[in-house]
Amino acid sequence: MSQSPAQKRPHRASQREKGDPLVLPPGTTSAQFKDFIKRAQNICGADNVFVVETEDQLVDGTYKEPNKTHDMHHLYDRSHFVCSATIAPRDVPGVQDIMRLCNELEIPVWTFSIGRNTGYGGAAPRVPGSICLDIGKNMNRILEVNVEGAYAVVEPGVTYFDMHEYLEQHDLRKHVWLDVPDLGGGSIIGNASERGVGYTPYGDHFMMHCGMEVILPNGDLVRTGMGALPDKTAGHKPGVPPHEQPGNRAWHLFNYGFGPYNDGIFTQSSLGIIVKMGIWLMPNPGGYQAYMITFPKDDDVKQVMDIIRPLRLQMVMQNVPTLRSVLMDAAVYGDKASYHDSKEPLTEAELDDIAKKLNIGRWNFYGALYGPEPIRNVMWSVIKEAFSTVPGAKFYFPEDRPEPHSILRTRALTMQGIPTYDELRWIDWLPNGAHLFFSPIAKVSGDDAMLQYKVTKKRSREAGLDILCDFVIGMREMHHIVCIVFDREDPSSKKKAHWLIRTLIADCAEHGWGEYRTHLAVMDQIAETYNFNDNAQLKLNEQIKNALDPKGILAPGKNGIWPRNYPKEEWVMDGKVEPLE
Amino acid sequence: MSQSPAQKRPHRASQREKGDPLVLPPGTTSAQFKDFIKRAQNICGADNVFVVETEDQLVDGTYKEPNKTHDMHHLYDRSHFVCSATIAPRDVPGVQDIMRLCNELEIPVWTFSIGRNTGYGGAAPRVPGSICLDIGKNMNRILEVNVEGAYAVVEPGVTYFDMHEYLEQHDLRKHVWLDVPDLGGGSIIGNASERGVGYTPYGDHFMMHCGMEVILPNGDLVRTGMGALPDKTAGHKPGVPPHEQPGNRAWHLFNYGFGPYNDGIFTQSSLGIIVKMGIWLMPNPGGYQAYMITFPKDDDVKQVMDIIRPLRLQMVMQNVPTLRSVLMDAAVYGDKASYHDSKEPLTEAELDDIAKKLNIGRWNFYGALYGPEPIRNVMWSVIKEAFSTVPGAKFYFPEDRPEPHSILRTRALTMQGIPTYDELRWIDWLPNGAHLFFSPIAKVSGDDAMLQYKVTKKRSREAGLDILCDFVIGMREMHHIVCIVFDREDPSSKKKAHWLIRTLIADCAEHGWGEYRTHLAVMDQIAETYNFNDNAQLKLNEQIKNALDPKGILAPGKNGIWPRNYPKEEWVMDGKVEPLE
Ligand SMILES: Cc1cc2nc3c(=O)[nH]c(=O)nc-3n(C[C@H](O)[C@H](O)[C@H](O)COP(=O)(O)OP(=O)(O)OC[C@H]3O[C@@H](n4cnc5c(N)ncnc54)[C@H](O)[C@@H]3O)c2cc1C
Ligand SMILES: Cc1cc2nc3c(=O)[nH]c(=O)nc-3n(C[C@H](O)[C@H](O)[C@H](O)COP(=O)(O)OP(=O)(O)OC[C@H]3O[C@@H](n4cnc5c(N)ncnc54)[C@H](O)[C@@H]3O)c2cc1C
Repeated sequence: MSQSPAQKRPHRASQREKGDPLVLPPGTTSAQFKDFIKRAQNICGADNVFVVETEDQLVDGTYKEPNKTHDMHHLYDRSHFVCSATIAPRDVPGVQDIMRLCNELEIPVWTFSIGRNTGYGGAAPRVPGSICLDIGKNMNRILEVNVEGAYAVVEPGVTYFDMHEYLEQHDLRKHVWLDVPDLGGGSIIGNASERGVGYTPYGDHFMMHCGMEVILPNGDLVRTGMGALPDKTAGHKPGVPPHEQPGNRAWHLFNYGFGPYNDGIFTQSSLGIIVKMGIWLMPNPGGYQAYMITFPKDDDVKQVMDIIRPLRLQMVMQNVPTLRSVLMDAAVYGDKASYHDSKEPLTEAELDDIAKKLNIGRWNFYGALYGPEPIRNVMWSVIKEAFSTVPGAKFYFPEDRPEPHSILRTRALTMQGIPTYDELRWIDWLPNGAHLFFSPIAKVSGDDAMLQYKVTKKRSREAGLDILCDFVIGMREMHHIVCIVFDREDPSSKKKAHWLIRTLIADCAEHGWGEYRTHLAVMDQIAETYNFNDNAQLKLNEQIKNALDPKGILAPGKNGIWPRNYPKEEWVMDGKVEPLE
Repeated sequence: MSQSPAQKRPHRASQREKGDPLVLPPGTTSAQFKDFIKRAQNICGADNVFVVETEDQLVDGTYKEPNKTHDMHHLYDRSHFVCSATIAPRDVPGVQDIMRLCNELEIPVWTFSIGRNTGYGGAAPRVPGSICLDIGKNMNRILEVNVEGAYAVVEPGVTYFDMHEYLEQHDLRKHVWLDVPDLGGGSIIGNASERGVGYTPYGDHFMMHCGMEVILPNGDLVRTGMGALPDKTAGHKPGVPPHEQPGNRAWHLFNYGFGPYNDGIFTQSSLGIIVKMGIWLMPNPGGYQAYMITFPKDDDVKQVMDIIRPLRLQMVMQNVPTLRSVLMDAAVYGDKASYHDSKEPLTEAELDDIAKKLNIGRWNFYGALYGPEPIRNVMWSVIKEAFSTVPGAKFYFPEDRPEPHSILRTRALTMQGIPTYDELRWIDWLPNGAHLFFSPIAKVSGDDAMLQYKVTKKRSREAGLDILCDFVIGMREMHHIVCIVFDREDPSSKKKAHWLIRTLIADCAEHGWGEYRTHLAVMDQIAETYNFNDNAQLKLNEQIKNALDPKGILAPGKNGIWPRNYPKEEWVMDGKVEPLE
């Protein structure tokens, strides 16, 4: 084994020299940094290297124009989770060269594809002063859309909107549909790599990916699954550089290949940079109908969830439906001020009023039917009958909801894979709206839903924040997505959000619930809750990390996994949080 | 890092001492072995330790009574792939202790759950003289069947038959169905760990697993996914040993947990021993109908496959259907001698005769419809119309095939998850019937199917063997399962089978096709075909292997992955094979 890497400590503020970034990479001197930047410019071109030198350069931007330097929805200071420089490689060898250079100089790297990972940290790195690789800026080609095999192959910069436009322009939606998350601005690779979700039957994005090309922390290039088998009939030729070799014909058809199936370790991880990925498209089902069902009472969540479970398991509910709390919908119709001038969390009565005013429920369910009409009719009659047992349940099709910003009409697009921006509106519930996602997993059951909702509601009240949440319902579990909206220009609002998420993580762990994905600030705290058998899983992850990335170059600290050369006591942000006054 | 482990070389025959096994573990002396056995007896009880001392003890047995020492369907000598001892731990700590002991003494271990992995090596280890852990013998409890969540949790020794009986006894099939492979004698864990397939909509067994408890090569115990989060509400209590702690309520509902998703690296690998696993059960679909469609001409495979692709993708074909060549079916009806006294591969005319005699096609398709009658009717009318375009296609329901050994009547059980033994009959196509599986993956397409079939047929003819094969059709790819049947008491028959598989691996690699799983003897050859970018994937696997198992204790050589202390030039069995005379 090569010489041990230097121990890395958080960079302490010190005198800055001209040309220095706001925060140097840990353990890197000014001179080393400048050397690095020069060499990075040689690799990627000066245009593709941007050093963060002043606070002024930290402009939050918006979802549509996201920044590439820090967390737009900053929970701490804007400059807390900040990179030293953003670098956009031009191609695969550029990424490899940067990784090799970073290994040589022992500089940490954080990757994003687009940087719209809002609520989870946006473009920001976990370790301040890391280099951010803006991998999607130049590497943004749709490499293939294969109608027969119903898949697409993309580079990191391809967004859901890009893919949708491609399908539209080539008149392919009659053959295949895309699955999209609530918003269409994220990247297909970034989202799947974080195991994000969408709302058609293909909503589990990791499950629906197939075949990756990955750059390891040391710069090596691997193709996973069938991609590891060179395919002459696809045009594989000696002499062509590996990343330009056409892939095996089954690369994006069959995930597992031969031997250990590795793709999972490249998700939510710091073990590789995905530079190409296959994603399955859904065959056009030959018919579609979105629907909404409203439930009048806050407590209905219990009964509703118990109705959902068997229907979802049976695939009578074919897609990933959502059950949304009243404010999740209301916040899309208008901001808090449009309903009320209270600074306090809205009361039950106020929530009932809003529901009434908008003609929605305290809970609102959005699903869709897929297939030819006779099949849809069978499904719909079963669904309608089941939910009719909930007193006051009302049923709608999109034409029944002509009002502006109708959620049903937006979901009717989302659930057939047409991306939109509409859901962005709830972020502005408060002025200078920013948000954090708290996303625990639970069994699809009335008791779990009710209890998880109650815990969240109680703590939100205590924090003085409204609760906006929905349940995203997979086959056997649900992602409960709690959208903690705060005012990013108001320190007390930030403090509330921060207190709330840390408190909820702890509360939920007590109930046996864990989160599926999280924000930079609380990665350590959540990783610590997954501590079965003396942190056996974390230790396993650390062992693999240290083997594949002995210098801890790629995304140190991501999801609580610290490489050997990052002393934990100096880096871990534990669950402690200032009490609310 | 601790002291480097000793280099391991194949054991050369030497004078054997009393009490020595037929083959000592590589690098282990007689005295060390005896010390090991004594200590293993202390851990597991003398009853659970069996040393292979003589050739006489190598009794092939049958599928129903499989041996636990060597490959029942031996391609080389019976004693080639042989273990030194078979040890059956009594419980999880027993497995951990054995792994620690093997680390201490640097003795390699091979694991099986049941040992019915026929066609792929059975119970035998890759490295002769390894210890075989018969993990399913004592650890064979059904830990839970959860109807609401539609899953079961099992230990390694639970077979498909065991689970089926449990469902029957508790009258649970009205709620949930199991997915089963062709035969029901294998273990749920062993099959999923090899990424085996079944034939209901839940046929992808790795996809349908959820949550593992794994013992790492060093003896550490890990729970994956949500299992890593201790759950007090499920009864988790400090003081109880980890493996006895009840699991998180979402352990078997949600696969991914938080951070890297590791389960894939424990499949087809040498990185862990799975001691508990969740498997999803399919909700009873509320209606079922199996069907068979026969096609008269050998060339029909092309047209048929192009009809299947869109229907399967659209889930009009809801399950994993199979398209079987005439002899695959015929061999279940009777052995070769019952049709013909030829020692040569049957000719086209002879195959046509057999098809006619049995009233089956040259190709026979088996699928099923799931759901209430109106839904099944829609699906069936689409399927029937599509296949009616193939001249001479005939359609059958089970009641139309009352003959003994009707494949359709067996498949009608299999496709609803009822295990059987019927398919065993094709192994006896030749006297002393033994078999090897050759299993390449391909796109679901007429061209691929036709070409792959032609290549296989041509080489089978050259080898002087009949071709028995079927296509197992997943959503986007198919597993082409070629059953190479040979006479294990006839050296020339074995030579033919051996020549055939090695030649087919090489031929298929030329066409860009790779195998999904394989026999011990050809693991190295297949691993070598997955050699993209200078074997990047293999190197990645080796890095992880060396990190988690620095002494190369667990399953060295499995699927071509050799730990650092096994010099490859001494161990790899490459693609060379004696020419046929
Ligand atoms: C209103 C609203 C609704 C939302 N709804 C959803 C939803 O329905 N479902 C959902 O999943 N999310 C949702 N999100 C969260 C987020 O917007 C999406 O997940 C988005 O797709 C993230 O996209 P991105 O490509 O910009 O991420 P990026 O910032 O580019 O990537 C996110 C992270 O993934 C990793 N990563 C990115 N690229 C790579 C790569 N090439 N190789 C390795 N790792 C990589 C990095 O760790 C990175 O930090 C929502 C957000 C908002 C504001
Ligand atoms: C006629 C016939 C039809 C068949 N049809 C099918 C079919 O339809 N589908 C199919 O998939 N197979 C099929 N097979 C192959 C085989 O019988 C099955 O795959 C069977 O399920 C293997 O079962 P097992 O549990 O005995 O395997 P084992 O021998 O117990 O295990 C197989 C391998 O898995 C690994 N393993 C086992 N247990 C563990 C563990 N606890 N932890 C880690 N690794 C472990 C080991 O490497 C082991 O060598 C068929 C075989 C025959 C003869």
